[in-house]
Amino acid sequence: MTANRAWRLRRRPEGELAEGDLELVAEELAPLRDGEALVRNELLSLDPTNRIWMSAIRGYMPPVPIDAVMRGLGVGEVVESRREDMPVGSKVSGFVGWQEYSIAGPDPLGGPETVLPDPLPAPLSAFLGALGHTGVTAYIGVDLAGLKEGETIVISAACGAVGSIAGQIARDRGARAVGIAGGPEKCRHAVEDLGYDACVDHRAEDWREQLAAAVPDGIDVDFENVGGEIMDEILMHLNIGARVSLCGMISEYNEYTGENSSAGLRNVGQLIMQRASMQGFLVLDYADRFEEAIGYLAGLLGDGKLTYDETIVEGGIEAAPDALAQLFTGANTGKLLVRL
Amino acid sequence: MTANRAWRLRRRPEGELAEGDLELVAEELAPLRDGEALVRNELLSLDPTNRIWMSAIRGYMPPVPIDAVMRGLGVGEVVESRREDMPVGSKVSGFVGWQEYSIAGPDPLGGPETVLPDPLPAPLSAFLGALGHTGVTAYIGVDLAGLKEGETIVISAACGAVGSIAGQIARDRGARAVGIAGGPEKCRHAVEDLGYDACVDHRAEDWREQLAAAVPDGIDVDFENVGGEIMDEILMHLNIGARVSLCGMISEYNEYTGENSSAGLRNVGQLIMQRASMQGFLVLDYADRFEEAIGYLAGLLGDGKLTYDETIVEGGIEAAPDALAQLFTGANTGKLLVRL
Repeated sequence: MTANRAWRLRRRPEGELAEGDLELVAEELAPLRDGEALVRNELLSLDPTNRIWMSAIRGYMPPVPIDAVMRGLGVGEVVESRREDMPVGSKVSGFVGWQEYSIAGPDPLGGPETVLPDPLPAPLSAFLGALGHTGVTAYIGVDLAGLKEGETIVISAACGAVGSIAGQIARDRGARAVGIAGGPEKCRHAVEDLGYDACVDHRAEDWREQLAAAVPDGIDVDFENVGGEIMDEILMHLNIGARVSLCGMISEYNEYTGENSSAGLRNVGQLIMQRASMQGFLVLDYADRFEEAIGYLAGLLGDGKLTYDETIVEGGIEAAPDALAQLFTGANTGKLLVRL
Repeated sequence: MTANRAWRLRRRPEGELAEGDLELVAEELAPLRDGEALVRNELLSLDPTNRIWMSAIRGYMPPVPIDAVMRGLGVGEVVESRREDMPVGSKVSGFVGWQEYSIAGPDPLGGPETVLPDPLPAPLSAFLGALGHTGVTAYIGVDLAGLKEGETIVISAACGAVGSIAGQIARDRGARAVGIAGGPEKCRHAVEDLGYDACVDHRAEDWREQLAAAVPDGIDVDFENVGGEIMDEILMHLNIGARVSLCGMISEYNEYTGENSSAGLRNVGQLIMQRASMQGFLVLDYADRFEEAIGYLAGLLGDGKLTYDETIVEGGIEAAPDALAQLFTGANTGKLLVRL
C-alpha cells in the first residue's frame, strides 16, 4: 500500500480560488492491477486551464467532479509496474493530477500516458514547457495563423509559458514580434532575452499609446492569450486580412460563474471591417503534430535559438493551490511548475 | 442645369440619427463632362452600413466627410450621357448617394457604376436585394462557412434583406435553418413563407429557451447579423468545429461613438472550447464572385425556390433618414428601399 496525498475539489470556486475549495487528503492507494503502473510524480504543471476545469462551465473537457482529485499535467517516474510499456525507472508525462503518486492505467485522462525518451535530451521540466504541451501550443498557434516573413505579430502574456515560445518562433520565421507583458522587468526580459522587437507594458498608464507606437504597420496576427481590454485594443489595430489565433483568455477565467465570463469584448466588429478571422484552438486536437512540433522546437533549442523560462515552486504538493494564483497575477515568468 | 436635392451630412450622429445630423439641400448640378452620365435615381437602398459611414469609426471605407452628400447604394436610369457604356435609358446601380440625381463618372464610389441587363430579368428593386448586394452577401456568407447538408445554421435578423436570402440558401443546401427574428409575426413569416425549420422570437421572454429547443444538435454555423446578447447566446451552443460568418452586428452600430461600440461579447472564449472559427467578411471583396452568386440566386428565383421581401418607403428623398431607423427597430421586413 502506498501513502498518497491528493488535492480533492470540494466545491467550485467563485472568482479566485479560495481556501476550502480544495482539500489536501492523505489516502492509501490500492495495489496495482494488470496494465497499471505506479508513478511518483516529480513536477506538476500549473496551467490557466486548471482554473477552467474547476468550474461547471461548458469546456472542452468535463469539469473535475466534486470530491475528485484535481486534474493536472505533470511528469514523474515509474516506481512499480504491471504495464509492459512502462518499466520501473521510466520517466512519464500526462494527467498525473494534483497528488504525489498517480496510476498510469487504461484511462489516459486519469494518469500519465506518454513515456519520455531515455536518455532525456533536455531537463525533465522542459517536457512540461518548451518541449511539452505549452511549446506545442505556441507552435500550433503560430502555424494556424499562417504567419509570414515581414508580418507583425502581437503576443499577449509575452513572457508566459506559451507566449515566450511563440515570440521566438515568430522571430525564427522572420516576423516582427511585439509582446505585451506586465511591468518593466518583464518587458526588458521580453526584448533582451526572448528577442521580441518591442514590448508593451500593459500596467503602464500609456499602454495604449505604447501599443500603437509598437505596431506602426498594424497587426497581421494576434496570438491571443489574455482576452479582455488588452485584446479589445489589439482588435483596433488589425490589418485587412488579419488572423487571430485564439489560444486563451486568462483575464476572464476567474470571472467565469457558470455560463458566462463577465468581461466583454466590444471591438469584435473590427473583424468585419478588416475582413479578419479568428480561430480558437486546443493543443489536444493536434496530437498527430506533437512529433513535428517538438522536433522543430528541439532543433531551435539545439541551435541556441530558444530560451525558455520556468518558475519552479518548491514546497511539495501543499504549494499547488497558492502557486496557481501566480498565473492570474502574472507573478511567474515562463512555465509555472511545482516540484513535489 | 439640373435641379437636385441631396442629403448632406452636417455632423456625426451620437446614438440614433437625429434631426440636424443631415440636411436636405436644393442645389444645381454642373453640366456633364466627357465620361460622365447623369442618372435620375429611382430607388435608394438603406443598409445598416449607412449608419457606420456616418461615424468617424475605423471602417472598411472612409467615413462620409462632413458636408458631403450621404453615401448610399441605389438604382436609377441614365437621362443624359457623355459616357459610351451608359446610353440614355440604361438602368444602372451603384453608389448613387442620398439624392435625386447622381453623376456616373470616373469615381466608382461617387456614382453608379454597374449597367444592369436589358431587358431586366426581374423587377428593378431586386437588383438592390435578392439579386443585388444583399443577396450576394447571403451567398458569400453561407459559402465561407462551408455549410454542409444536415448541419444546423442559425441566422439572426432572419427576415432581413440578407438573412432571408441566407435562410433559403441554407435550405437549398439541405441544412437545418433556424432563424432569429423580433416578434411572432416575423417568426411566422420566417417559417411559413421563407422556409426556416424554426424561428426564435428574441422579443419573447423565453427566447433563450426557444433557442436551446430549436438547436437540439447544437449549432454548426452562425450567420451573424446582429451581435450583442443574441450572438453571445448563440456562442454558448456552438458545436466543436463550428464556423461563424460575421456579416454584421447591427445591435451595436448605434452605439459606436468613435472607437468602440459599447456592447460587449462575453462568450468569445467558447471559440476556444469548441475549436471554432469566426470570419469577418465584406461583400465588396467578392466582386469576382458576383456573377456566380447572382446566377445561382436567379436560378433559385426561376425555380420558384426563392422568396424575397421588400419594404419600399414612398415619400421621395425626404423620407430617407426616418426610413433608416426602421433597420434598427426591426420595423421593415426584407430589403428596405426608398422610392424617389
